[in-house]
Amino acid sequence: MKNISILGATGSIGTQTLDVIRKEKERFKLIAVTANTSYLKIIDIINEFKPKLVGMMDEDAYKKVKNYCFEKQIDMEILCGIEGLNRAATMEEVQIVVTSVVGMIGLIPTINAIRAKKDIALANKETLVVGGEIVMKEAIKAEVNILPVDSEHGAIFQCLQGNKNNKISNLLVTASGGPFRGKHKSELIDIKPEDALKHPKWNMGKKISIDSATLMNKGLEVIEAHWLFNMPFENIKVVIHPQSIIHSMVEYSDGSVISQMASTDMRLPIQYALNFPSRSERIVEAIDFFSIGNLTFEKPDMESFGCLKLAYEIGEMGGNMPTVLNAANEIAVELFLQNKITFLQIEDIIREATEKFTYIRDIDLDIILDTDKRVREYVKNKYDL
Amino acid sequence: MKNISILGATGSIGTQTLDVIRKEKERFKLIAVTANTSYLKIIDIINEFKPKLVGMMDEDAYKKVKNYCFEKQIDMEILCGIEGLNRAATMEEVQIVVTSVVGMIGLIPTINAIRAKKDIALANKETLVVGGEIVMKEAIKAEVNILPVDSEHGAIFQCLQGNKNNKISNLLVTASGGPFRGKHKSELIDIKPEDALKHPKWNMGKKISIDSATLMNKGLEVIEAHWLFNMPFENIKVVIHPQSIIHSMVEYSDGSVISQMASTDMRLPIQYALNFPSRSERIVEAIDFFSIGNLTFEKPDMESFGCLKLAYEIGEMGGNMPTVLNAANEIAVELFLQNKITFLQIEDIIREATEKFTYIRDIDLDIILDTDKRVREYVKNKYDL
Repeated sequence: MKNISILGATGSIGTQTLDVIRKEKERFKLIAVTANTSYLKIIDIINEFKPKLVGMMDEDAYKKVKNYCFEKQIDMEILCGIEGLNRAATMEEVQIVVTSVVGMIGLIPTINAIRAKKDIALANKETLVVGGEIVMKEAIKAEVNILPVDSEHGAIFQCLQGNKNNKISNLLVTASGGPFRGKHKSELIDIKPEDALKHPKWNMGKKISIDSATLMNKGLEVIEAHWLFNMPFENIKVVIHPQSIIHSMVEYSDGSVISQMASTDMRLPIQYALNFPSRSERIVEAIDFFSIGNLTFEKPDMESFGCLKLAYEIGEMGGNMPTVLNAANEIAVELFLQNKITFLQIEDIIREATEKFTYIRDIDLDIILDTDKRVREYVKNKYDL
Repeated sequence: MKNISILGATGSIGTQTLDVIRKEKERFKLIAVTANTSYLKIIDIINEFKPKLVGMMDEDAYKKVKNYCFEKQIDMEILCGIEGLNRAATMEEVQIVVTSVVGMIGLIPTINAIRAKKDIALANKETLVVGGEIVMKEAIKAEVNILPVDSEHGAIFQCLQGNKNNKISNLLVTASGGPFRGKHKSELIDIKPEDALKHPKWNMGKKISIDSATLMNKGLEVIEAHWLFNMPFENIKVVIHPQSIIHSMVEYSDGSVISQMASTDMRLPIQYALNFPSRSERIVEAIDFFSIGNLTFEKPDMESFGCLKLAYEIGEMGGNMPTVLNAANEIAVELFLQNKITFLQIEDIIREATEKFTYIRDIDLDIILDTDKRVREYVKNKYDL
């Protein structure tokens, strides 16, 4: 029996993690959950899974959960704000912390969980994109596993098993290519948010859908892979693979390429991370090789999709620059979704921010959080968000 | 430094093994080689690699090697016949025995090597097809590795690493489909040997080329996989994959499929087996995903290619029946190459032999060798070979 805590239990990954736990009740026990404002979903979780602790970021939502539990005479620890996240991340009986909270807020609880010797099932992008250097040092020191909960890094993680001391030539991160694959930059000028939100393979939130359309999503994954697998950027290659059957690959020194394939269902990488190093029974659709059709591969077009190129450059710089990239991207995506900028301006805004802000090589948590805050303010002010 | 012995050093796999050793001189030392009649090639090997022992099956060839070494004052152990194979398989300083000798003659030296605690780099098909039950028991008892030296089993072996205790749903053995892929049985009536010898992807010997055209090659591999990986036949699936980029796959219980890809060069699985569990530097061409084109998958047509279906049936029966299948197939292929039977008669002859001979469930080495001999005589006599 593994005891699980989920930071961010009501979002997409959180909900799918709950489904994995639901289907493997004999293996997993849900100990703690946190959410931002979604108190109704949290009440459902309380009734179904009976966790020992609930943390609500939002004070009104916290009060509603508190009142509900009082009325129903449910005896449970209920906390408000960051205290709830930190407590859920560090509770004694918890073995794995699923970090599916969105944004920079996930960073400190993740580090606290690592210091408390918890394995991390990592779904919070910021943890590695902005904090990779700090977080991986902590993880090595604490001797905990950082188990990636996304299809690409999860695939690479699987392809690395049994090759502990073997030299890697390249990590091949596959990408669907997004809704505008094959389009020239000149065709991207008039893109509207509604066009960009139509993703061909994965059903995702708005922010990630736009990131997938600009290929920034893949750029952020390249930075994550750099830290997670301790791999130089020049040995992390993006391969456009529109069918999204191969979720990523590892090319070894001898020329052998190991790949992982599965249906496009996030519950598999979640299930793998929670069960690692074991594998349990299938809860996702199996691949039918006789009906999947052709598998194809293309080179990414870094000129039309400049965000990917930019992410490589910024990742290589390191320090506080990925924080600038990430923060500027988030605000730029928001501006685009509100029709305040064009699709191609997303890249321009990020590039401008990375040029505007001072490069700091040696970072700590304060520098990252401060950089993040200042970049957001700067871009928001400039574009009147 | 690993000390290597090659049984059958002058054939296709033997020659490619020598090339791997040549390219990794700092890792491997060639201790012993054997051959059948090819004394000129053996003399080249003696001059280049300076092994401690040479075994020649053929007496004339043995004498020629002996005389050469006498004249050149080369001090080396030279043996004739099966004694040479057995000595090469069991020499004290040898760690890995590459069994690339062709035919039943490989069986006893392989078992002797296992009993002498040598790891086996296995390229002799008969070892597992006819002797799988016996050989794997010996290998488990002696705690030695059976390292497959062919692209399919080598791929599966790689895909199994890091998943020691994980449940496998299916082994997916890929097949190019051979030169007659997509043809209906009615189109196979007039096939001539020269048509069947044109293999689309691999450059191979005549016997294997015909086996690849009938899909018997894949059937024999299914039987090998059954023993090597201790997998029921119903969980070994053949997937036609004409591009031969994916060399085989493992589908795990959770629905995740791990595959191994590489260029079609036998030196990679040889190199992997010799270096296992390490991987060394690339000596084969790398895969360029941007130029390989589409990867496709098809269901094998077991009606047109009845040899594959037959191999499943016979493999499931076990006992002495795979020996009957293998022996009848070898003679039938020879008959076809000599234009004495048609392409489709290959299957008929094998099926008839498996019906003619008495099924023996509990086998030992004597029963296998006796069955093999009697089947060959029977088919030869009947078709006047």
